Amino acid sequence: MSGPGDPGRVVGIDVGGTKMLGVLIDPAHPSEPLVVLRRPTPAEASQLIDSLAAMVAELSGATASQPYGIAGVGIGAAGLVDRRGRFDTGPNLGAASGLDLAAALTGRGVVAGAPVWVDNDATTATLAEVRLGAARGARDAVLVTLGTGIGGGIVADGSVVRGAHGFAGEVGHMVIEPAGLTCACGRRGCWETRASGSALARAVRHAVGAGHLQAVVDAAGGDPDAVTPEAVTQAAAGGDAEAQAVVDAFAWWVALGLANLVAVLDPQRIVVAGGLVEAGETLLRPVRRALDDLALASGSRRSLEVVPAALGAASCAIGAALLALDAVGSPEGEVVRLRRGPPLP
Amino acid sequence: MSGPGDPGRVVGIDVGGTKMLGVLIDPAHPSEPLVVLRRPTPAEASQLIDSLAAMVAELSGATASQPYGIAGVGIGAAGLVDRRGRFDTGPNLGAASGLDLAAALTGRGVVAGAPVWVDNDATTATLAEVRLGAARGARDAVLVTLGTGIGGGIVADGSVVRGAHGFAGEVGHMVIEPAGLTCACGRRGCWETRASGSALARAVRHAVGAGHLQAVVDAAGGDPDAVTPEAVTQAAAGGDAEAQAVVDAFAWWVALGLANLVAVLDPQRIVVAGGLVEAGETLLRPVRRALDDLALASGSRRSLEVVPAALGAASCAIGAALLALDAVGSPEGEVVRLRRGPPLP
Repeated sequence: MSGPGDPGRVVGIDVGGTKMLGVLIDPAHPSEPLVVLRRPTPAEASQLIDSLAAMVAELSGATASQPYGIAGVGIGAAGLVDRRGRFDTGPNLGAASGLDLAAALTGRGVVAGAPVWVDNDATTATLAEVRLGAARGARDAVLVTLGTGIGGGIVADGSVVRGAHGFAGEVGHMVIEPAGLTCACGRRGCWETRASGSALARAVRHAVGAGHLQAVVDAAGGDPDAVTPEAVTQAAAGGDAEAQAVVDAFAWWVALGLANLVAVLDPQRIVVAGGLVEAGETLLRPVRRALDDLALASGSRRSLEVVPAALGAASCAIGAALLALDAVGSPEGEVVRLRRGPPLP
Repeated sequence: MSGPGDPGRVVGIDVGGTKMLGVLIDPAHPSEPLVVLRRPTPAEASQLIDSLAAMVAELSGATASQPYGIAGVGIGAAGLVDRRGRFDTGPNLGAASGLDLAAALTGRGVVAGAPVWVDNDATTATLAEVRLGAARGARDAVLVTLGTGIGGGIVADGSVVRGAHGFAGEVGHMVIEPAGLTCACGRRGCWETRASGSALARAVRHAVGAGHLQAVVDAAGGDPDAVTPEAVTQAAAGGDAEAQAVVDAFAWWVALGLANLVAVLDPQRIVVAGGLVEAGETLLRPVRRALDDLALASGSRRSLEVVPAALGAASCAIGAALLALDAVGSPEGEVVRLRRGPPLP
């Protein structure tokens, strides 16, 4: 293979609320990034563009004196991205509100000649999982990312569903408790107030506050504030019944939202992504059990399965790179394949 | 045009929980049925098949001595219909549970030579509205039928979404109140416990029981039990503030579920169908107002609109007829266009 200036390569960047993850991708091996970089997400809009430009430069191996020849840049951002690639809003990514990331980056010149494509992070993760990962071969699938919030991506009859404005898949903002907790979006009772990583952290705090999870508190040096959700899922995996009870109660809320998606979309596969997927079967087993109970006509949905994402933490960045690859490969220079959804094998 | 034996014509039948509606359709004018028949839905499976066969015979003008030459029969049934056309389950149509309606009807011989196609009623209504009615031209649309329960159909990027098992669009069974009222499906807090016609009837009973809606009670001859939801929506339309308050509260629940569908699917158009749509703007105006408030990023969804269904009570039967027309027109003899969704103009 050629060097960093290989014109066939693309950069993909996942822009989250707190972290950015960038990859350099060779089209021949898209699921195995040549380079992976992690950086904090800056709080200011101008710094965000600077950081993204620096990340593109670093990933592509470019220097001021030697422009690089990557074919394109894809960005998956944590929020609503419209069909033209403009970042609309995102409660966890205020710096980008209203920004046309593609125009701003292109304006820097640092991505000289390389078109920039922007989409929602869960949408790019879905694209990656459906082409290369755990949703492969499923014509009807749903991806949910359980992280700070809950994101989602939908595949219907082999195509990624983007919606009229590009905002489809905001599954974390289904209201499941009208009088429930206030969400980051300002409304009450959204699914992500109960089933995101933040929600698990809150459930753990409550359990500790109520005098439960003593073994986990002890393992954290006796400091209740030092107990993390990860420590609880690990304790559950190790056989701690109290920890498993907290995980089971949380899994019920995860399954409740999944049951709603099953009622609406009838997927054959649900791919669970995001930080919480690291809990593995400790979380997925009670989710499946609760979903069996909660999903309408679950006994008749013979092919429904709940599986962990396959591409790990880089899925969103890899999907963003695929977005750029699609754009480059399209005669119109547009992301036709994503607009219409990826053709499945 | 030719007579009842015209081989290009198709029959469409809407099989609801209490009523059946059948149409005879000329392919050249599918939105204007040549014949419309209404019959009660029988409670027993064997009677159901007899009634359907009789309806096909009557619609097509056939007699025992003169077989008729319709090209096909489409059926839209109120429940889960799998991708092979077998009726799986339907809380409001127990007689059909597990029935292969197509095979049973074909077995009667009365539909001699005419293939029979079966799908979910809301799916066939969606097919009709997207081809001929209020969803026409919308690449991303959702149809909700507010009747005894709530059914739904989804159009994503121009295609009707059917799901892995054919069960997509059961939007009435999104759980929006985990500790809420028990639903006909056996679970708690489904959207249809709050936003169906039955739910409005319950809300009206509660309001009357609490001493409200006196003018409507008076108009019903002073008998609280004689107050119908229709009387209340009509009173609201006539300026009765108490009646409008009941409608507004109900509209809020309708909007809550629509907001969830907006978050997940990002449609440009929501088509409201079913009996309640007869309340017209009296209901739709407060629904739109509440949806503006409840939908995520509603200010950025410039093209979102909520409109009444255009084809009225016959939409499901007309869509069922379209299903048969598609099947007849497909070289494989399969409903390829519905499977993949109808191509839009």
